[in-house]
Amino acid sequence: MNNVFRFVVLALTLAVFSTTAAGGLPSWQDGASKAAIVRFVEAVTRVGSPGYVEPSKRVAVFDNDGTLWSEQPLYFQALFAFDRVKALAPQHPEWKTQQPFKGVLEGDMNSALAGGEKALLELVMATHANMTTTEFEQVVSNWITTARHPKTGRPYTEMVYQPMLELLDYLRENEFKVFIVSGGGIEFMRVFSEEVYSVPPEQVIGSSIKTQFEIRDGKPTLIRLPEIDFIDDKAGKPVGINQHIGRRPLAAFGNSDGDLQMLQWTTAGSGTRLGLIVHHTDTEREWAYDRDSHIGKLDEALDMAEQNRWILVDMKQDWKRIYPE
Amino acid sequence: MNNVFRFVVLALTLAVFSTTAAGGLPSWQDGASKAAIVRFVEAVTRVGSPGYVEPSKRVAVFDNDGTLWSEQPLYFQALFAFDRVKALAPQHPEWKTQQPFKGVLEGDMNSALAGGEKALLELVMATHANMTTTEFEQVVSNWITTARHPKTGRPYTEMVYQPMLELLDYLRENEFKVFIVSGGGIEFMRVFSEEVYSVPPEQVIGSSIKTQFEIRDGKPTLIRLPEIDFIDDKAGKPVGINQHIGRRPLAAFGNSDGDLQMLQWTTAGSGTRLGLIVHHTDTEREWAYDRDSHIGKLDEALDMAEQNRWILVDMKQDWKRIYPE
Repeated sequence: MNNVFRFVVLALTLAVFSTTAAGGLPSWQDGASKAAIVRFVEAVTRVGSPGYVEPSKRVAVFDNDGTLWSEQPLYFQALFAFDRVKALAPQHPEWKTQQPFKGVLEGDMNSALAGGEKALLELVMATHANMTTTEFEQVVSNWITTARHPKTGRPYTEMVYQPMLELLDYLRENEFKVFIVSGGGIEFMRVFSEEVYSVPPEQVIGSSIKTQFEIRDGKPTLIRLPEIDFIDDKAGKPVGINQHIGRRPLAAFGNSDGDLQMLQWTTAGSGTRLGLIVHHTDTEREWAYDRDSHIGKLDEALDMAEQNRWILVDMKQDWKRIYPE
Repeated sequence: MNNVFRFVVLALTLAVFSTTAAGGLPSWQDGASKAAIVRFVEAVTRVGSPGYVEPSKRVAVFDNDGTLWSEQPLYFQALFAFDRVKALAPQHPEWKTQQPFKGVLEGDMNSALAGGEKALLELVMATHANMTTTEFEQVVSNWITTARHPKTGRPYTEMVYQPMLELLDYLRENEFKVFIVSGGGIEFMRVFSEEVYSVPPEQVIGSSIKTQFEIRDGKPTLIRLPEIDFIDDKAGKPVGINQHIGRRPLAAFGNSDGDLQMLQWTTAGSGTRLGLIVHHTDTEREWAYDRDSHIGKLDEALDMAEQNRWILVDMKQDWKRIYPE
């Protein structure tokens, strides 16, 4: 009986450690960032604690580009659009002489993107619209399983951050419902979110183009129209969160000024809240950029982190590794 | 040991009956409708069955008005709007002479609604917009706990259908994720969906007005604007389902032509699918209406039910009781 008793104590001890003591964050250095995360999770999950929140209300939101996976030299979805332009070029001989398509086809990104937002929108619509939702899903699925990143040679789905994967798991083990809230395309991310992040499609929020229901050849179909529906970025993020989730998150994780309002909205809630910014500081293992970056610019939110007590994660210092092996 | 064995067999037998054999549908008459529901659930949940679907993909969608609760003499949310007009009237002396408000204040619904859709929209905006999301939630919460239905005298939340509550539970016991997909207001329904239907806010899809993020007096706020964002009805329902869920449901439950496209979209999917229409046939215990009703008109979908093998639930025949005791 004595042995059984010891075994039970050991098992209980292990169970406590593995759920709340961040045994599940092995790629995080022991330090202030990890300690703050664990302190937050313990505060909202420990029954009887003043910060306790019942499981059904434990919602956490994560930005994607630059927070869960890399975003340099360009958002991966933009690289997808470029690859699609190349694949579709034979059906569009006019693109040879027409910007922004000409630039993409000639590998001259500067001239392709010289047209600014209008040029980018043209590229998105030419590659993301005028097909059914099922067709688009298939196109993204083919791309994501075959394309490789220009610098690392890795599949894009292997440029996700190992420490953040562990954080997603740690929160789920503590009965959080985890949502992605990204400026990226909602239907683009949903193709791989479940396999890569274990986040099901109904917990992915993103930017979208309009869709339209039509009966085509007797079959009910959803057609993707070349028209913006919603931009889930900056002040759009709290709107998207409210529209999809309908309650204020307890914790928000981002990396750029695009996440500022999501961090504000989340951490202004009553009780214990957590805001966290992934700061790209690692030139060797990833990239280092913030205030002057053309992608993932982090300026205003960086200035506001301290007064709001948002955790600033220093990738170089805080993370033992960047990508999964 | 023999007794233990018998106990285990008994427990297993009970477990099987309570989950798949619809021991959980006591308010449904034994008949074709109940049998079809049970047959569907068994087909998608029995491991090894050709129709088996893994739990993460078991999605069911339910219309609300006329499917989960009553909708006569008028959508309950319209009755909410009327009550709000009366409550707000002291601040709007001009309403005394101005339609549609004049009609509402004088209890003359015909003249209030004579202005058609435009009049209804005016009433909605005057009562649903120009406040924060938190303020609106509070207003609905106060109303839903105090208001009474003009005919039955019941709180509106007690005019939900007992057989449908059992069906929601039965599906959840079989690891379905259940969503509400309604033409009603998404933020209106979310106030009571969790308590009344055990459906959390993030699983409620509905019509919406636009919201805008603003810092007011230093506090991040979402303001409800007097502008339609999305109408989750008819061809809008598959669009809303795609936007919020991102996968095609296995089962759809509705009661009117507003649910037609949702039924089409759902049951056109591959594998085993279920479409079900609640047909209001009970003048005594509820209401009887279909093709000519001003609310919840069921005409086209009624014609199409047979060829699509949608179950037509006859409320009078199929349901032992309508409301909870």
